[in-house]
Amino acid sequence: MASRIYPPSREEVDEIHGDVVFPDSHPGDPSLPYVAMNMVSSLDGKASVGGKSGSIGGAVDRETMRVLRSKVDAVAVGAGTVRAEKASLTSGGRRSPEPFAVIVSSTLDIPFENLPHTTRERTIILTCKDSNPTMLGEARERGRILTFPPGDGGNRLIDIGGAMRVLKSRHGVGSVLVEGGPRLNHAFIRGGLASEIFLTLSPKILGGDPLETGGIIIGELPGAGEPPRGELLSIHMPEAAGEPGCLFLRYALESPGFR
Amino acid sequence: MASRIYPPSREEVDEIHGDVVFPDSHPGDPSLPYVAMNMVSSLDGKASVGGKSGSIGGAVDRETMRVLRSKVDAVAVGAGTVRAEKASLTSGGRRSPEPFAVIVSSTLDIPFENLPHTTRERTIILTCKDSNPTMLGEARERGRILTFPPGDGGNRLIDIGGAMRVLKSRHGVGSVLVEGGPRLNHAFIRGGLASEIFLTLSPKILGGDPLETGGIIIGELPGAGEPPRGELLSIHMPEAAGEPGCLFLRYALESPGFR
Repeated sequence: MASRIYPPSREEVDEIHGDVVFPDSHPGDPSLPYVAMNMVSSLDGKASVGGKSGSIGGAVDRETMRVLRSKVDAVAVGAGTVRAEKASLTSGGRRSPEPFAVIVSSTLDIPFENLPHTTRERTIILTCKDSNPTMLGEARERGRILTFPPGDGGNRLIDIGGAMRVLKSRHGVGSVLVEGGPRLNHAFIRGGLASEIFLTLSPKILGGDPLETGGIIIGELPGAGEPPRGELLSIHMPEAAGEPGCLFLRYALESPGFR
Repeated sequence: MASRIYPPSREEVDEIHGDVVFPDSHPGDPSLPYVAMNMVSSLDGKASVGGKSGSIGGAVDRETMRVLRSKVDAVAVGAGTVRAEKASLTSGGRRSPEPFAVIVSSTLDIPFENLPHTTRERTIILTCKDSNPTMLGEARERGRILTFPPGDGGNRLIDIGGAMRVLKSRHGVGSVLVEGGPRLNHAFIRGGLASEIFLTLSPKILGGDPLETGGIIIGELPGAGEPPRGELLSIHMPEAAGEPGCLFLRYALESPGFR
């Protein structure tokens, strides 16, 4: 027994996820912000073409990304994302002030010219205590620097849970949208920090080499027990002409035993 | 503007894809069979755990796989799939005779004890003209052998289009269900041979190393122009208790310029 849910009876909405409201803390720990992840994937599970993900989802995906950013206090990306292209982490004016642009880079080995357009006051760079002093100096001109010990995920990232606590306590960040890359996504999943996932499933087939095209979550998860899984909350599909026909999936996420 | 299609108005069905009927030839070339591909992926785009895909989708996925097999004349898998586990390519009695079990292995470097339970008469092994004679002899005891020149996809596979033509002309195979692995999937996509894709999207998050967990299509696609893309035909979601809550997606596939 199953339900056929597509083709659907349609309920028109003006904006995908325009009605989303996030809580202002992690459901299990009020000292942590609420974290949602936003990802785009090709039909065959690829997350990027030449390190960039913009061409996979199309215009509606980019628009939906800005809608989701307008719902949070901070948008976080990893160093690889900043290396691949100039980061624009704003809501495009939907939220004032714009959410904090949070860059996670343990080594600060990033092209600073690719940092977001956001003002210095709204840019926060999370890095390791022992980062190169020269790089630290340059980074300090671009945004606030917060330093942390290394994480325990074996992926050279910082202690991401500790960083989230500081964002909440010191900067009033109640909600964070994580936009990848796959190793930063992994750190949030592994730490049991993420409460939901927005996945744009593009109908494009990209093929390619798995070492280059990555995937949306890269890194080992604790082996014992069932893997974390999402619970489907909604599916949207835009009707705009010329769009590739992405599915916009929203999943609640439980990570039992991960925290 | 978009449509919210989930939560849905429900149309109950007894069996996912029980109403599917495939044509008996490729829509653009009557000398080729009609090809549909069936894949399962985790939410983060992973296709296998330790080379096996069975645990990703759960019982309804395995049942749906047998339903789809009952709609075709032949079920095809690559050598890697046979290496990973004992292949069972039958419809579980839904179709009589069972579809041909087609194994694609250019080198015949496969554990023959993992070949499907199907009878020798219903097993077809597609391999290269220059395969090792000893392996050829052993393979001949397990099924019919058809030999072909190498393909041009740079992935050590046989000429898969030529093989499909022979299956159709000599064995009356009008429709083929391709069940992976990712390099065989790639050969069908690259050759413009596949007309649709069934994708079971599991809500599980598997993480891991992209070199080990693969993905569902691996191999370069011609770079010029737009990548091939699917057009969504249907979404099903089972309501069985204890199931992980997979989405069963069906896409029509056009591969312009690939043939």
